[in-house]
Parts: sequence; structure tokens; C-alpha cells
Amino acid sequence: MDKNSSNIMALAPNTSNKRETVCIFGTGDFGRALGHKMIQSGYPVVFGSRSAQTSSLIPKGAEVLSHTEAAQKAAIIIIAIQRQHYNFLIPLTEILHGKVLVDVSNNLKINEHPESNAEYLAQLVPGAKVVKAFNTVSAWALQSGTLDASRQVFVCGDDMEAKQMVMNIVRALGLTPLDQGSLLAAQEIENYPLRLFPMWKFPILLSFGLASFFFFYCLIRNVIYPYVYENKDFSFFIAISIPNRICPILALILLALVYLPGVLAAIIQLYRGTKYRRFPDWLDKWMLCRKQLGLVALAFASLHVLYTLVIPIRYFVRWRMSSQIISQVLNNKTEPLDTTNAWLSDSYVALGILGFFLFVLLGITSLPSVSNNVNWREFRFVQSKLGYLTLILCTAHTLVYGGKRFLSPSSYRWYLPNAYMLSLIIPCMVLVVKFVLIFPCLDKPLTRIRQGWERNPQYSEQSHYIINKSAV
Amino acid sequence: MDKNSSNIMALAPNTSNKRETVCIFGTGDFGRALGHKMIQSGYPVVFGSRSAQTSSLIPKGAEVLSHTEAAQKAAIIIIAIQRQHYNFLIPLTEILHGKVLVDVSNNLKINEHPESNAEYLAQLVPGAKVVKAFNTVSAWALQSGTLDASRQVFVCGDDMEAKQMVMNIVRALGLTPLDQGSLLAAQEIENYPLRLFPMWKFPILLSFGLASFFFFYCLIRNVIYPYVYENKDFSFFIAISIPNRICPILALILLALVYLPGVLAAIIQLYRGTKYRRFPDWLDKWMLCRKQLGLVALAFASLHVLYTLVIPIRYFVRWRMSSQIISQVLNNKTEPLDTTNAWLSDSYVALGILGFFLFVLLGITSLPSVSNNVNWREFRFVQSKLGYLTLILCTAHTLVYGGKRFLSPSSYRWYLPNAYMLSLIIPCMVLVVKFVLIFPCLDKPLTRIRQGWERNPQYSEQSHYIINKSAV
Amino acid sequence: MDKNSSNIMALAPNTSNKRETVCIFGTGDFGRALGHKMIQSGYPVVFGSRSAQTSSLIPKGAEVLSHTEAAQKAAIIIIAIQRQHYNFLIPLTEILHGKVLVDVSNNLKINEHPESNAEYLAQLVPGAKVVKAFNTVSAWALQSGTLDASRQVFVCGDDMEAKQMVMNIVRALGLTPLDQGSLLAAQEIENYPLRLFPMWKFPILLSFGLASFFFFYCLIRNVIYPYVYENKDFSFFIAISIPNRICPILALILLALVYLPGVLAAIIQLYRGTKYRRFPDWLDKWMLCRKQLGLVALAFASLHVLYTLVIPIRYFVRWRMSSQIISQVLNNKTEPLDTTNAWLSDSYVALGILGFFLFVLLGITSLPSVSNNVNWREFRFVQSKLGYLTLILCTAHTLVYGGKRFLSPSSYRWYLPNAYMLSLIIPCMVLVVKFVLIFPCLDKPLTRIRQGWERNPQYSEQSHYIINKSAV
Repeated sequence: MDKNSSNIMALAPNTSNKRETVCIFGTGDFGRALGHKMIQSGYPVVFGSRSAQTSSLIPKGAEVLSHTEAAQKAAIIIIAIQRQHYNFLIPLTEILHGKVLVDVSNNLKINEHPESNAEYLAQLVPGAKVVKAFNTVSAWALQSGTLDASRQVFVCGDDMEAKQMVMNIVRALGLTPLDQGSLLAAQEIENYPLRLFPMWKFPILLSFGLASFFFFYCLIRNVIYPYVYENKDFSFFIAISIPNRICPILALILLALVYLPGVLAAIIQLYRGTKYRRFPDWLDKWMLCRKQLGLVALAFASLHVLYTLVIPIRYFVRWRMSSQIISQVLNNKTEPLDTTNAWLSDSYVALGILGFFLFVLLGITSLPSVSNNVNWREFRFVQSKLGYLTLILCTAHTLVYGGKRFLSPSSYRWYLPNAYMLSLIIPCMVLVVKFVLIFPCLDKPLTRIRQGWERNPQYSEQSHYIINKSAV
Repeated sequence: MDKNSSNIMALAPNTSNKRETVCIFGTGDFGRALGHKMIQSGYPVVFGSRSAQTSSLIPKGAEVLSHTEAAQKAAIIIIAIQRQHYNFLIPLTEILHGKVLVDVSNNLKINEHPESNAEYLAQLVPGAKVVKAFNTVSAWALQSGTLDASRQVFVCGDDMEAKQMVMNIVRALGLTPLDQGSLLAAQEIENYPLRLFPMWKFPILLSFGLASFFFFYCLIRNVIYPYVYENKDFSFFIAISIPNRICPILALILLALVYLPGVLAAIIQLYRGTKYRRFPDWLDKWMLCRKQLGLVALAFASLHVLYTLVIPIRYFVRWRMSSQIISQVLNNKTEPLDTTNAWLSDSYVALGILGFFLFVLLGITSLPSVSNNVNWREFRFVQSKLGYLTLILCTAHTLVYGGKRFLSPSSYRWYLPNAYMLSLIIPCMVLVVKFVLIFPCLDKPLTRIRQGWERNPQYSEQSHYIINKSAV
Repeated sequence: MDKNSSNIMALAPNTSNKRETVCIFGTGDFGRALGHKMIQSGYPVVFGSRSAQTSSLIPKGAEVLSHTEAAQKAAIIIIAIQRQHYNFLIPLTEILHGKVLVDVSNNLKINEHPESNAEYLAQLVPGAKVVKAFNTVSAWALQSGTLDASRQVFVCGDDMEAKQMVMNIVRALGLTPLDQGSLLAAQEIENYPLRLFPMWKFPILLSFGLASFFFFYCLIRNVIYPYVYENKDFSFFIAISIPNRICPILALILLALVYLPGVLAAIIQLYRGTKYRRFPDWLDKWMLCRKQLGLVALAFASLHVLYTLVIPIRYFVRWRMSSQIISQVLNNKTEPLDTTNAWLSDSYVALGILGFFLFVLLGITSLPSVSNNVNWREFRFVQSKLGYLTLILCTAHTLVYGGKRFLSPSSYRWYLPNAYMLSLIIPCMVLVVKFVLIFPCLDKPLTRIRQGWERNPQYSEQSHYIINKSAV
């Protein structure tokens, strides 16, 4: 791509090492910050301004001219003004003809206007080549050089050449341009900086819902029931004991929900006999937020670990232990070591530790820089094989924790089973179905379907190119 | 969102901003996914197919033609078909003359064929410029845009210009091309997606071997011995107590094995008096998997921490404590505080905490995105200085843990010393040798050797350029 | 594996796919490693050397010529020799006229010479185009291909075209070029590899200072006081008990110091009525190392967690517990459950767990690869909203820990208050001021100031373009 850029320069009389002049309309914070950074990177910068008078805030080395004069000096004009003032460009249409206009604007709300700012600009100045760029970069980050957040600059536009010119500037500023296609993508690019963890919304809302349900469930069983029947005040259970019941339950349910859509997709594909039909929308969306679901589950698992490890430090636990010992002494009886209990206690703890350990490993491999260094086979090995192993260990941990209590009537208070029993429903379902799907009579046709085989080829949907779900 | 970008281009009279047409042979999953992505990025796409008839699955905006017609429309042809069908290209040799053929194929096994698919393709179509690329990318990832795994595309080929053209397409698709040299590299590139953590194999096998040895060792000492001599059933030690002996032992040994090859290399260099001779192969390989050894050691250390922190929760431990207290009460004797014991107990725990803390720090700095942000001096400071400090702390932790037990005969059951004593051999050796190497009489010549000085210059091996091991 | 690819190309009649020849002056470690890597990437390489005789160490495929002959063969000459030998280039000035000279040298000390090596080179060889590059790359990393540390190559130079040529080579070697501007930047680039965590110096020194102060403070209160007045030897507190007081105190103070500069900046801006005046230097520097301060605080918090979780394992704690139980039994009195105590104990532990959990979350989002994947709104949400929530939780944790002890005279030994009380001063201050700043009467003008409004526009400082601190 640089082959003829050097030629162009070679043709210029003496300007071989000179970068093309860039014009910036608007001397606000962002325009000045961008200008400053461009001067640093060797671009001559001209500001176009109403007042055309150099203020002390204009970066050193930049000229300030009227809009018309400034526009004539450069092939690229950055429009660093707000959308509502765009119509001042209408009289300049002739001068802007053929120029590259870079729209850097943002909105205050998602989908604030029917068309994106960049498309609106393209309509106002029909002869210009509009490129959307730089809207995801912060003025402060440009200035201070501490780009803690993303270095990515999304670029889109209908004119390839204009887009290339802008992307070269982006690269020269030490940022990473990402070509997003035609100007239609501007709407999405403008919405991007307004987003607040869109992929996390569903997992977090779901876990809040589940958490409040289980909170009240445990409150009734563990605080209100003993208060009503035994007149004991266990309200302090709200601080640690109840959270330490909610966290493992949510971790297990959410982890199972990570693997449920894959199992559902397999069933749908087997039933339809083809992979070339879209999954229902809810399944598609569910599949795309599996990573987030898994990380929320890991957060709950980590909290469970912390809540569990502080148990022996808690006043209540120490009090209970010493009062048990004292009562044993006063009754003059010594309990012998119950090996079965020792086995149960140690093995459910060990299962929990191994499950948590694998869970953390899964979390580490989902870090962008780690997953970027593994190939697909490795990524799928970790996320699928190790993921199922984690689910099996965590489910076993809960089952062994239950131990003999499953059938004991004392664990049903007001006909409510222990909360952990409810948490086992989805994981056990997922594991059973997965186990069934491993049988050759189901696994073979599924593999063939995923390799492209169709039971009834005419079934193929006509409208839409379908995603290959082989990575499920 | 990019649907009409290709249309807009088609309308433009001046083709300056038009991307070159790309032809794709094969309408399978991968061909279609690649075509779809290319159309999104502004490339006109032509499919070459036997049937030459548009199916509903072909991405919108792409033409489908016969192989001959399609090949004539483009300078770049992507061969998205399997190796066994390559011979259908032989009749097309004339049309493909001078074209860039992109081999995207993969094999099912490592080194499945004597020559790589790309080299085979180059033999079949002698006049074409074959480039290997895209084989590490998954069709599903291309389509869904969720490139969780690597964005890296390895590219190789004998023709520089053809390679450049392909690398430009890779960049336009938002992926990162990595030039791997001539077509000879294709074999390695084709093996890449089949690899399953090759660097981890040795550390994991080694730790499995060591773990099983120490498991049976501890089983004999801690379960079978008391069963034989005292008829006590401690079989439940298998769940937590024995793993909690194996984990710290393995963590310490593996950590020492990370630093052993550096020490060996120094001795070899001192003995030879030059750095310009290759190390034995095993030492080279060992050095290259030090990072993986260290991370496996960290995994065992983390498990040790978890197993240790749950100790007070275990039924057996609680039972033992209460029975000890009860027996004290019944015997009416109170133990006074033993300050020496308090010192020993607290200091071995504190050493362990500090060692583990530094170990985690080492692990964090080995994350690709973190190590990418430090310079060499910082990286070596962390990995060498902090690494040795970690080894010293962990060794001291084990030594203090041993405390007075080293010489006590009761810790030798069936003449077997306590397992942790065995774990101290390698770390102590490494630390002693390292300490000796710090003495100026050895450090000075070593530094000179590493700066290029040779005791007997004629020694230099003739065959091979040698890696500068100064980073050891 | 690519050794003969360059030969093959050199033989080819059509030179369209030939990369330009690169000349390397100097056959030392670094020159050879760079030459080796370049040959791998398809560049013909010529070494310029005094002896002009091929040694066995020269990478295969490279020619060795005299300096003059070698220089004539290439447009780019890499000067892989040390600064003190640069003057041998003076006689070659004529031959080097118009050539691109790449300075790859490093110094042994920061700012060792008045001008950078690259600028010195440019003075010695006036007609050449000097580019600084590759100095941050290690010879060993180039050779072994295990670029664990940074792949970034800082490039600077006055000639745009020459810089582009060098940056293309950098890219071809699989490294990432970063344009740092004109040759004036060479000084900084040469200092870069000599730096040892410059941003961490202040946070680490500060925490060492604070840690030693609090160590002696706690030593006096908890070891010397009981020794003097009660003749008890608690010297073993040095191992765990005292560190476990220092760590949470430092974590809390450092966390508060992360948010203090933002609060100070807001006050300064409100007082001045403008954001267009520079903050004092110390405030600017403080703001730039907030991330490091926060991570050091997180390290102390993690140590505090580990120290706390091992409490029940410690010999002293177990001894104290059993002696308490025994004394209860012997005195024949049983303590009833104190619900208030249970509430206090559980809630301060729960606050600590939640605070630590959020703190770890903050730490994870500050990983480069994670923060690179969030937009500015998300980054600020996490670092500001979640950050303040963490500070509130940790402060509340300490306050509830204090509980009723605040006013108890027994907690004042030698008129010294408990150490944790001192740690509360800064966090409480920050939270109170931040709370005041949220009131609309202060928040509204502050928001307007940060959007560019000025109370007295003429105030603007004349000298310097000012950073927009809106991200505070």
C-alpha cells in the first residue's frame, strides 16, 4: 500500500518527507487534542474557525484560518463540531467537493437520530467523501498519551481511497484502525461509545433475579423458620451464611446455563436433520453471551470460596464450636472419629477445590491476550472438555455436600427443600442430556450434520446465509 | 450493514477506490464464510463451482460461475476445497498461470502427507504463485465475528508480491497477518491448528509422573503404615491430606526445575569457555519450556494454598481439635504457650504466603498482554530476580516447616523419610550452585563469555549460527 | 527453514518480488541476530565488516564485504556497532549520502551522553537519513523467536520516507512499529530499555515508607508494650500478626490516595473557575501513577486476605482458643451467643469480602488486554463508579472492625491509638469531600467547567496547551 505513496512524494519537488496537511474544523477540546497529536506525528495542521484568530489554546505550530481558507489547504477535513451546527457547512459545499470529510461526532443517546451523524453529513455535503472515525477515542487520552482504554479506531465510509487515507492517519497516531465497511456502519459506530457492557446485561439481570429469589427462599428457611418455631434470632445469617448459600447455587446454575444452549442446539440440529437453518433468535443470543454467563458464574464461585474460607474466623462459628466442646465435656462423652463423615467431608471439599481450580483456569483462558495465543483446537479443548469437567466436578461437589440429607425429612422446612437441591436441577439435566448425546447412535448423525450433511436437503431456508454452528 | 457497499463500487466509473475481485473455488462452509466476510470488507467475490448455480447458501452479492470463468475474473483465487480434490485443477493449469492461489486447507493429522498441501498444490499447478494462508481461522469465527481465539493468520509463500497481496486482504478482514517466510513453512503452518499445547506436554507429563510417585509414597507412609501398625483407617487422607502433600512438593520441584537449566547452561559455558557452541538438545528444549514449567508449578502452589486454607473446615481436623481439648480437660492439664512453636508456626506460614504472593506476581507478568508492556530489563528483573526470591522463600518455607522433624527418628517410617525432604533436594542444589556462581571469581569470566569473549576462539563450531544465551 | 528462499529469489530473473537488500555494519551478536531474522523474512543481507571475511558465525546466505562495498549494495544500512566506534563512519560520509542509517544502539546509563546516539550519528554523517529503531529488541529474543517481552519497536526519525522504509522492515519481521515522531525522540527511546518500572517507583517507595512507619508503630503497641507491662513475649507477632495489621492499613490508605488527586483536581477547578490552567506538577504526576498506586494497594489487600485466612491454622490461635475453652470449662461457665457480636463479626467480614472482590475486579479490568476491549464509558464506569464503591466498602469494613473499640480507653496504649484508626483518616476525608462534591450546587458548575465553560475567560494561561482533565 505504500508503494505509490512514496512515488507521489518522489514527484513532489522538495516535499519528500512532508506529510499531507490536515484541516480541522472546530477548535473545541477534541479538535485541539486531535490537532496536537497530529502535529506531534508530523502532520501540518490548519484549523478552520469562525473567528480565525489564534487563541492561546490552539496547539503550537497550527495555523488558524477561516473555514474556507482552511478547507482549501487540505484534502482531509476533520469535522470536530457538533451535529446541530453541521448546517453551516452547506454554503461551503463547493469548496468541500471531492474532499475527505471525517466525522468524529458522538451522540448522547443510542439511536438519537434516525440516521447517523456521518450519513447526515454526507447528505448535507453531497460532493464530499465522508468517513466516520475517531469517535471512540477520548480527547483526554489523546492528549495525555495514557491510552488505558482501547486503541482501536473504528473507520467506515463508502469511498475506499478516502477510508485508506484516514486509516493511514490513524496508524500514524499510534492507534489501530478497524475497517467496518460502508457508511451504513456509522450508526453502529456512533452507538459504540454509548454502550455500557451490552453483552453483560442479560447475565447480570438473570443473576440478580435468581439471587433475590434464593435470598428470600433462604431467609424463610434459615432465619424466619427458626425464629417462628424455635424463637432463635439468626438474623445475622444475612451477612455471610445466606450469601454463602446463594453464591454456590448461582455459580452452579449459571455454569450449567453456559452449556445448556449447546445441548439444545444439538437437539434442534438432530431433530431438523440439517445445520442450514437458523436457530431461534433467543438461542442465538444466548449462545453469544455464554462467555459472560461463565464469567459471572466464576465471580459467584470466587465469592463462595471467600465466604467459605472465612467460616472458622466468624464469631458465631467459634462460639458454636466451643459450646459443643464444652457440652461434650460436661456430659463426659467423647465422640469417636466417624470415618464415613471424614470421607464425605473431605471429598466434597476436595471436589469443590478441583472444580474451582478448573473454573479459574477457564477464566484465565478467556482473557483476550491468552485466548489470542491458542489455536482453535486448543481453545475448544479448554472451553468444551475442561468446561464439562468443571461442571461435573461442581455438580458432584453439591451432590456429595447434600450427602445423606437428601432424604432426611428434617431438611424440609415448611415443605421447602434445601436450596441446593433446586440448584442441582439444571446441571443434572445438562449432564444427562450431554451423556445421552455422546452415544454413537446420536453422535454419528450429529457429526455428519455438522459437517454439512442434510437429511432433507430441500429444507434449506431461502432467505439468509446461515452460520455454521460447528463450534457449539 | 455492508450489503450495498459492493454495489456502490460497481456503479463508480472511476475504479480507483475499487478493491480487486477475489475468486473462491469451492462453496463449502469455509469458502462461503470467507466470501461473506470479504464482501463485508468491500471485495467483489466470485465463486467457482462445478454446478455454477447460485444456491441460497451463497452469500448475497457474490456471483457463482464455472471454475474457468471465475478464475478469469480475478488475480487471486482461494482454493477452499480439500486436498484429495486438488487434481481437478490440473486441466485449469493454463488459466491459473500467473495467478495467486491461496491454499487454506488443513489436514486431519500432523504430517499426514510427505509434503504440505500448499507445496502439493504448487507442484500440480506449476505456473501459479501459491500462498498458504487462513488455515488457522475457523469458519464459525469468521461468520459470527466473535474471534475469541487468535486473530493471527500465518502466511507463507515463495512469491513476495503474491504474499503481500494476500496479507493486504488479511488486514482488510480485520485479522493480523504473520509472514512465515517461504512455502517451506507451509508444513509447519498446516500442523499448527492440529497442535494441542505442544509446549505443555513435557511439563504436564513430568508432573503426572512425579505426582503418581509421591502419591504412592505418601499412601504408604500415611495410610498403609498406620493401618498396618496401629490399625487405624486413614483412607480418607486420599481426598485432601495426601494431595496437600503432593501439591507443595511438586510446586517446589517444578519451580526449581525452571531455574536448573540456567544454572547448568552457566556451568557448561564456564567449562567450555565460550557461548558460541550449541547446548545439548535436551537443554535447549528444557529452556524453551521453562515458562510452562513455572505455570504448572504455580497451579500446584495454588492448589496447595486452597487445600491448606480449608484445613480448619474439615471434619477430621475439627474432631481432632475437640478431642485434644477434651483430653486436656479430662487430664486437668493446661499447656502453656510455647513461644518457639509459635515462632516456627508463624514464620513458616509467613514464608509460604510471601513465596506464593511473589509466585502469583510472576504468573501475572507472564500473561502475554502484561509482558508485552515491559521492556527487556524489566522482564528479566521480574523473571530472574523475583523468580529466585520466590524459590528462596518457598525453599525456606519447606525447611522451616520441617523444623525439628528432620532428625527425629519417628519421621522415618519403614526407613522412608518424610516426602517433603525429598522435595528439598533439587531446590537446595540449584540455590547452592547459583550462590557459588555469584562469587566474582566465577561471575566475572561468565559475564565476559556471555559478552562474546572466548577462551579458545578456534573452538567455534563450524556448522550453525548459535543463539546468544545471554538471557539465561 | 527459509534460508534458501532469498537465494531462490535472487536467482529469479523477474525482480518484482524481491525485497530490497539490507546492509548491516557490525557482526556482533545483535547484528548477526538481526541479519538472521531478516534473511528468514526474505531480505537479502550484506554485512559490512573490517575484516570482510565470512566467519562461521555469520548467518547463512549473508555476504560479508568491506564497509564501503556493503554500503553501496543497499539503501538501508543498520549500524549495529557501539557509539564509541561511530567515528569510523566519517570517512564513509560520501558513500552514505542519501542512505538510510538505522541506529540500533543503546546506552548503559540513562542520559549517558548530552545528545542521543542517533542524533550524534546524524551529526557525524550529515547527508544520511538517520532513523532510530530496534534498540528495544533483544538479540536473544530475535533469534529464539520467543518474544516473551514486547514486540513493539519504537521508531523515530526526521525523514518520513526513511522512517516508512524502516517501519516496513519492522512489520516484515513480525514486530510492531510505533512511530515516535522526529529524531528528537531518540533520547527517550534510548532511555526506554534502561528503565526499571519508572511509574512504580513512587508508589513502591511510598508504601515502603508507610509500611516501616506502621511496622514500628505496631511493634511498640503490640510487642514492646505487653513485654514492658505484662512481661509477655509476643515477638512472634512480627511474622504474621503485625504484617496483617500493616497490609490492610496500607491497602486502604493507597486506595484512598488513588481517588484523592481527582477530588483535589475538582476543588482546584472549582476554585479557579476554569479547566484551562495547568495543575501543579505534583498533581499531574500523582494522577499519572494512580493505576500503579491502585495495583500496589491491591497487592497489600491480597496479602491481608492470605494472612487473615491462615489465622485458624496458626499455633498461637489454636492454643489461645483451646486455653479459652478449657478455662471456661474449669470455671464451669458457658457463654451465651451474643447476637450483636455475631452481627458485627459477620458484617465486617462480609464487607471485607465484597470490597476485596470488587478490588480484584478493578485489577482485572486494568490488565492491558481487558482494558483494550472496553470503550471509554465502560472503562470510566469501572474505574470510577466501582472504584468508589470499593473504597466505601473497604472503609466500612475498617469502621465496623473498629466497632465499639473506638472509644474504649484500653485501646490507647501509651496514648497511641490503634493503627487502623490512623488508616481511616484519608479515606474518610476523600469520601466526605466526594460526597460534598456530588451536591448539585457544586456538581453543576464543575460539569460546566469540564465542558469548557470559564468563569473568567481572560484567566487562560498563555504559554501552554492544557490537557482536558474531563476524565478525572
